[in-house]
Amino acid sequence: MISFNFNNPTNILFGRGMLNELGKQQLPGRKACVLISNGKSTRANGYLDRTLEQLEIAGAAYAVYDKFTENPLKEHCEEGGKFARANGCDFIVALGGGAVLDSSKMVSSMAANEGDLWEYAKGKEFPNAGLPIVTIPTTSGTGSEVNCSGVISNLKTQEKIGFGDVRNIPVLAIVDPELMKTVPARYTAYQGFDALFHHAEVMISKGLNILSEAIALSAIENVAKYLPRAVKNGSDMEAREHIAYASTAAGITMNLTLTTAEHSMEHSMSAYHHSLPHGAGLIMISKEFFQFFIDRHACDDRFLKMAKAMGIQNADKAEDFITALVELQKACGVDDLKMSDYGFEKSEAMTLAKGARSMQGFLYTSNPCEMTDEDVAGIFERSYC
Amino acid sequence: MISFNFNNPTNILFGRGMLNELGKQQLPGRKACVLISNGKSTRANGYLDRTLEQLEIAGAAYAVYDKFTENPLKEHCEEGGKFARANGCDFIVALGGGAVLDSSKMVSSMAANEGDLWEYAKGKEFPNAGLPIVTIPTTSGTGSEVNCSGVISNLKTQEKIGFGDVRNIPVLAIVDPELMKTVPARYTAYQGFDALFHHAEVMISKGLNILSEAIALSAIENVAKYLPRAVKNGSDMEAREHIAYASTAAGITMNLTLTTAEHSMEHSMSAYHHSLPHGAGLIMISKEFFQFFIDRHACDDRFLKMAKAMGIQNADKAEDFITALVELQKACGVDDLKMSDYGFEKSEAMTLAKGARSMQGFLYTSNPCEMTDEDVAGIFERSYC
Ligand SMILES: [Zn+2]
Ligand SMILES: [Zn+2]
Repeated sequence: MISFNFNNPTNILFGRGMLNELGKQQLPGRKACVLISNGKSTRANGYLDRTLEQLEIAGAAYAVYDKFTENPLKEHCEEGGKFARANGCDFIVALGGGAVLDSSKMVSSMAANEGDLWEYAKGKEFPNAGLPIVTIPTTSGTGSEVNCSGVISNLKTQEKIGFGDVRNIPVLAIVDPELMKTVPARYTAYQGFDALFHHAEVMISKGLNILSEAIALSAIENVAKYLPRAVKNGSDMEAREHIAYASTAAGITMNLTLTTAEHSMEHSMSAYHHSLPHGAGLIMISKEFFQFFIDRHACDDRFLKMAKAMGIQNADKAEDFITALVELQKACGVDDLKMSDYGFEKSEAMTLAKGARSMQGFLYTSNPCEMTDEDVAGIFERSYC
Repeated sequence: MISFNFNNPTNILFGRGMLNELGKQQLPGRKACVLISNGKSTRANGYLDRTLEQLEIAGAAYAVYDKFTENPLKEHCEEGGKFARANGCDFIVALGGGAVLDSSKMVSSMAANEGDLWEYAKGKEFPNAGLPIVTIPTTSGTGSEVNCSGVISNLKTQEKIGFGDVRNIPVLAIVDPELMKTVPARYTAYQGFDALFHHAEVMISKGLNILSEAIALSAIENVAKYLPRAVKNGSDMEAREHIAYASTAAGITMNLTLTTAEHSMEHSMSAYHHSLPHGAGLIMISKEFFQFFIDRHACDDRFLKMAKAMGIQNADKAEDFITALVELQKACGVDDLKMSDYGFEKSEAMTLAKGARSMQGFLYTSNPCEMTDEDVAGIFERSYC
């Protein structure tokens, strides 16, 4: 039976050079709170100046908040919200990678609401709608440019929680693959795999539907085909734009279909080991995570479809997906990631498993079969090296 | 190079029984102008009562305007707009087939603007935004439930023009395949082919992009697989829901990519022969229309992809698409349509060709190669029987 809710109101302008079109768009306010990371690159690459110039062309004023770190932190979201309010901003422009885009949803809500962000993270509803959001991703991975949620870390409680307010779906996303040219090879690989896993999880999700499947398979095909090229040569714009497509498309498929516990598991990993990049964590556990469902024949046909999309044309068994996955990891030079390199110990497995369920237990409901904490700990143990 | 504008703000609730969810939605106003056709079926099937009941549950008042004929007429759009205004309605609920959905965009605009609708059809912009629109399709075909335009006929001038205001994209679409159960077999076939051609034209369009291709191929596969079943047994809900998916998905692909001159040609045909159903007109000219581009090798690879999606797994040439198309027409009992049965004469070919370009010339820009009026007249002549 076909049943779905398609809710993708973000106006997406996709293409090389598209940043230059920002000034021609009707913007959702008069003064932008421009959010960027605390690193040098957004300024050094000229992306910030170009964005501010486009805002001027559109007749909008702005104030720049530039404190976001690689993993979005609660305190910066709260401070950013106050900053937007203090500066009289009436919309948000998020220019950056997943951390900045994720944070923008929280800054938007905190600009319009009082209180402690963590209470909202734990389920309290934002009384007021946030400020409208424009997103300009400079990396390919999260799909955050077209959805309403973000994954935020609380260093004090060692928690990392994904949440959001449906009213915070961005109104406009400028996806310009040229802005991604400067992402280093290693991060291109991590983020590309993040996009891959968004679609792969959608594919095995209980909530898969005919439309999310069509888009996910197209995106998976493109990641498998173009990610090794984008990793090898960051200036290969054809490769970059196909990865950018897959990444943004994941925002759409994730709005149609919930992902699975792989994401809960990774959020637990990087909550306990804050230096671990999201995509790297996913790669480390991916083989054993998907193997778990293959062993239980939870959705063999879907693994088969993915294996074919990834280039194994004569695929005839679910395991072929694992073969394709491992081959792609090798081709992108990320088959050697070790949990021990990031300070993990094998004995942490059950702690990580319990953390995954407590931080994002709702994703377990879309797993294609039952998965206990013991099962999850087992996946962490088998992934350990 | 990948470049597209994805702008699909309509919140789509898709699934059997979904009409029963209308009352739980946040509606865009307090009093609905409910638009239905002048036929008996919307009332007789209980669809109108069920819709009004849901509006009551949502706390909305309503007024019903019920004059739309099979082809949407200028005069009813104008009258409907005045009706909405006179009744103090602040949003539109369009419950019906393509004619009612198409008209709803014009009613919406005319409720908020003065003047003659035909001036707007000829390019004048509506000064004011129309009323927000909720669509509830009772047939599968046009994709009109998720886009901003409509095709309206002017009986006086014998013109049929497709136009719209981007602000009129529906805010909510309830796509409930159960409402389509009562569509007669012949119309199920016509409308299913309309959906097929929307996607097939998108596939050969100059404006095709990676996302519209993924969705179009999925939809084409589903029409080929399920339309014969839906035509044979209208209560086959599995077949109905797959056709409804393909139809609504066409609204999305057409928002991503412009269709081609086949639609201009059909609009000219039914402008001159008002009793011709849209889908029937498209079927009559489809073989020769697509053959024109195959003969010129305008986009062989795309025809090949469509042939495969339609079930010819070992397709190896563009012509295989025509084979699949003709087979599907036979399987749906619509391979015997004759232009002469609708009063056409062979000598009209050039009149129809000139009409097509004058009414919807902009679609010619997305044809995959040049197509002159002589070419179009030739297609009409070769299609004639
Ligand atoms: Zn992710
Ligand atoms: Zn049509």
